[in-house]
Amino acid sequence: MNGAESLLKSLVASDVEVCFGNPGTSEMHFVAALDAVKEMRPVLGLQENVVTGAADGYARMAGKPAATLLHLGPGLANGLSNLHNARRASSPIVNIVGDHASSHARYDAPLASDIAGFARPVSDWVHSSTSARSVGADAARAVRAAREAPGKIATLILPADTAWDPAVEVAAPLPLQPRTHAAGSTIDRVASKLQAGLKAVLLVRGDALLGEGLVAAGKIAAKTGARLVSDTFAPRLERGAGRVQVERLPYFGEHAAEFLAGTELLILVGARPPVSFFAYPDKPSWLTPDGCEIAVLSHPHEDGAAALAALMDAVDARGAEGRVATRQAIPLSLDGALDAKSIAQIVAMHLPTNAIVADEGVSSTLPYYDLLNNAAPHDFLNLTGGAIGSMMPVSTGAAIARPDRKVVTLVGDGSAMYTVQSLWTQARENLDIVTVVFANRGYKVLNNELVRVGASSNGPNSGAMLDLGTPTLDWVSIGQGLGVDAVRANSRRAFEQAFVSAIAQRGPRLIEAVLE
Amino acid sequence: MNGAESLLKSLVASDVEVCFGNPGTSEMHFVAALDAVKEMRPVLGLQENVVTGAADGYARMAGKPAATLLHLGPGLANGLSNLHNARRASSPIVNIVGDHASSHARYDAPLASDIAGFARPVSDWVHSSTSARSVGADAARAVRAAREAPGKIATLILPADTAWDPAVEVAAPLPLQPRTHAAGSTIDRVASKLQAGLKAVLLVRGDALLGEGLVAAGKIAAKTGARLVSDTFAPRLERGAGRVQVERLPYFGEHAAEFLAGTELLILVGARPPVSFFAYPDKPSWLTPDGCEIAVLSHPHEDGAAALAALMDAVDARGAEGRVATRQAIPLSLDGALDAKSIAQIVAMHLPTNAIVADEGVSSTLPYYDLLNNAAPHDFLNLTGGAIGSMMPVSTGAAIARPDRKVVTLVGDGSAMYTVQSLWTQARENLDIVTVVFANRGYKVLNNELVRVGASSNGPNSGAMLDLGTPTLDWVSIGQGLGVDAVRANSRRAFEQAFVSAIAQRGPRLIEAVLE
Repeated sequence: MNGAESLLKSLVASDVEVCFGNPGTSEMHFVAALDAVKEMRPVLGLQENVVTGAADGYARMAGKPAATLLHLGPGLANGLSNLHNARRASSPIVNIVGDHASSHARYDAPLASDIAGFARPVSDWVHSSTSARSVGADAARAVRAAREAPGKIATLILPADTAWDPAVEVAAPLPLQPRTHAAGSTIDRVASKLQAGLKAVLLVRGDALLGEGLVAAGKIAAKTGARLVSDTFAPRLERGAGRVQVERLPYFGEHAAEFLAGTELLILVGARPPVSFFAYPDKPSWLTPDGCEIAVLSHPHEDGAAALAALMDAVDARGAEGRVATRQAIPLSLDGALDAKSIAQIVAMHLPTNAIVADEGVSSTLPYYDLLNNAAPHDFLNLTGGAIGSMMPVSTGAAIARPDRKVVTLVGDGSAMYTVQSLWTQARENLDIVTVVFANRGYKVLNNELVRVGASSNGPNSGAMLDLGTPTLDWVSIGQGLGVDAVRANSRRAFEQAFVSAIAQRGPRLIEAVLE
Repeated sequence: MNGAESLLKSLVASDVEVCFGNPGTSEMHFVAALDAVKEMRPVLGLQENVVTGAADGYARMAGKPAATLLHLGPGLANGLSNLHNARRASSPIVNIVGDHASSHARYDAPLASDIAGFARPVSDWVHSSTSARSVGADAARAVRAAREAPGKIATLILPADTAWDPAVEVAAPLPLQPRTHAAGSTIDRVASKLQAGLKAVLLVRGDALLGEGLVAAGKIAAKTGARLVSDTFAPRLERGAGRVQVERLPYFGEHAAEFLAGTELLILVGARPPVSFFAYPDKPSWLTPDGCEIAVLSHPHEDGAAALAALMDAVDARGAEGRVATRQAIPLSLDGALDAKSIAQIVAMHLPTNAIVADEGVSSTLPYYDLLNNAAPHDFLNLTGGAIGSMMPVSTGAAIARPDRKVVTLVGDGSAMYTVQSLWTQARENLDIVTVVFANRGYKVLNNELVRVGASSNGPNSGAMLDLGTPTLDWVSIGQGLGVDAVRANSRRAFEQAFVSAIAQRGPRLIEAVLE
């Protein structure tokens, strides 16, 4: 057994079953070991931001880490922006980054670079293996580091000789630190504040937005009159018909400030006090109203669902009924122009039960978020770190984690170009993903932002930096070129037909929705 | 005038005329300022590795830096691997990386990250501006840093408030340090060694492979019997018919060792002693033969062409005639199978005079490099840092720098997928680029490497990590989807017809060469 095999077997022993990767020469022993360790499923991405984004999506839906396999510093570098998003999602990921053999390091060969330097800004744990004999134990430590609550990025650098030298050990999984709980005194303090009649907001993030945590939060809100709110970009939440309804914090700072105006008590459950996404001249970044008290029910590393359950009991809300979303007829004429709103309405009408929706529609979906409360129950995944090019890879990984569920990606054309290579992996793995590209031919959100930052200008040079219309991206050709069946929809009727058809079939589909 | 305008005007004053970019909200004042500062040409790339790679290609052909405009840490991160390649090419680049306004930094908003941390591994100079009043001066310093010989990466971080706050100054360009020259004693010492009758190799890198430097090197070699050699991956060299012929150091270490066997004197002109690209078990990384003396004629920061001119005089070679490549009839039947060799032959036959060839054909072009000695004179650009996805962006920037010259990109299908977004910029800017995609449906070089590292395995899992054939990439659809006319060639005859036609027309074209 060589180091690569020891590493792979140790990852498998620690319950890592999927490896998203794009290897190079320095990772060939790892690649060869994949044939010996069949419990590890390898998934190839044609650019590393697909690889790391897929690991993010996998983690969000599987609740455990996948491994990535990246080729030296540049391979890691290509995947950094989706590791940034994953870090903001608290997604556990174990990166395996190949390095030159230790004997080669002194020569500064063309592909040499400061791998740990690239890794550090996105990693909670970085280690470079020093021997094939310890690489299995390093893998177990990396998995434990990644699984630290609420979910961390662990980067293990693997010099080629630690993969090819003889090894003996398969490392046993290391015990995980149990998730800690909020203290009883904290629960009591928050309960009494909540019962004091203040205008309260319960801001929830993390897995407390799923399952029992969400139900408990709904009951607390119903019993106490607190508003139940999520961050604008929660990594994952359960929503749709029959699910507890959660208000979303608006994206733009001034809207969020208005939304929070009058709040006297802000209770944080795995969330942090809200701040604006960007700074704007003469607008506040800090969004908690003056005089509002902030109380932490649970920190991100603590068990938010358990804290909510305890709070539910403390305010005697177990018998309360949370406000759940109910399906209502959607008043939509199919004869109007195809626009972002009608797309959201059609998606809401036809989304199958238990679908996973991954949203990077940016300006096309932000205003119509609430329409999906009217859809069948589903999981909703957001772009957490603001680095576009996230959600097509995230969908790819989510579909690997949950092959039984339909995945729908809502993505702007500008975003879709960033990690367009995702489509090929979706085709290769025959993943059950419908990609809706909002073809508005531009970075439309930036046209708004140009005005909002007070930089308004309408000359040709600034316009050219925000426009995707010259030449027009032909998403049907692009999708088909990458192996995904694709159609174009220019009307509501055509979009509905394409979406219904894509939902009815299994496998990857792309719909280019041409916006008016 | 605000900071953004001061910055742009200062860049222009320092002779930076092109800005490759992909902006976001934090860069909107910079974008708006582009309308006011019309001397700066903005070029949009749809992913940042296109942006940074284009700046690399621009620098190689213009001999001066372009600016990049990148959106916060993730925008920089997306462009890091081509900055790695640019650093290995000694290409001068000025990165402008937007950052949150300084008042916003304390809040750790979703897009916040350690920008300087991302920048450091690829940057020779990193600075974060602190005021709109000094941002112009910072720009001038960044340009000076980038232009330090032989060419550096300078990264200027621009908090949004330093762009939007009032500014007064347009900074004058800073004087550049003059290029230093090798000492006369060094010239004399190397000359006497050369004249001592040792078996010598002159290993040249940098701009000494162009123009007068190349001519002088050819004369020295002819006069003294030294072999004239370039690195495997020289950033740029002039070659083809009528040009001094330079041997290329072979890619694989054992071939390079064989190539250098018997060398008694290795003279370095802007080059470093050769090392193997990767380490392999039981193969040496250091390639200079035992007992061979290494003499440095000029360091990378020194003027290599001047050193060669002085050495030419010192060995009395001014009257010698360098060995130049001459065109010969290419014995090629158009009836055989289309393979990598016949493609190289057809390209050599039809390449127009003064073309720029950018090579990332990897396993498809490495063995046939010498065939292009038989082409019309041209510039040849290599993938310098080994991070694939380089040369389609490099061609994009090269075509911006030299609109009068035809650019030919030779690229493997695996490489082409990395930065496929380049094609859109080529279409938008109507750049005169012919892209030849070698469609061998795999990371073929890695199939060889799997054997070479001794990791040979032929199971389905390892095979799946190296295969691009399932599903087949349809490059005609992909190209057309991105706005570039594309055709498929399955035979020599079809390839020749497509290549001749593409050369005859102006504007971007793509040829998918399907290899047997």
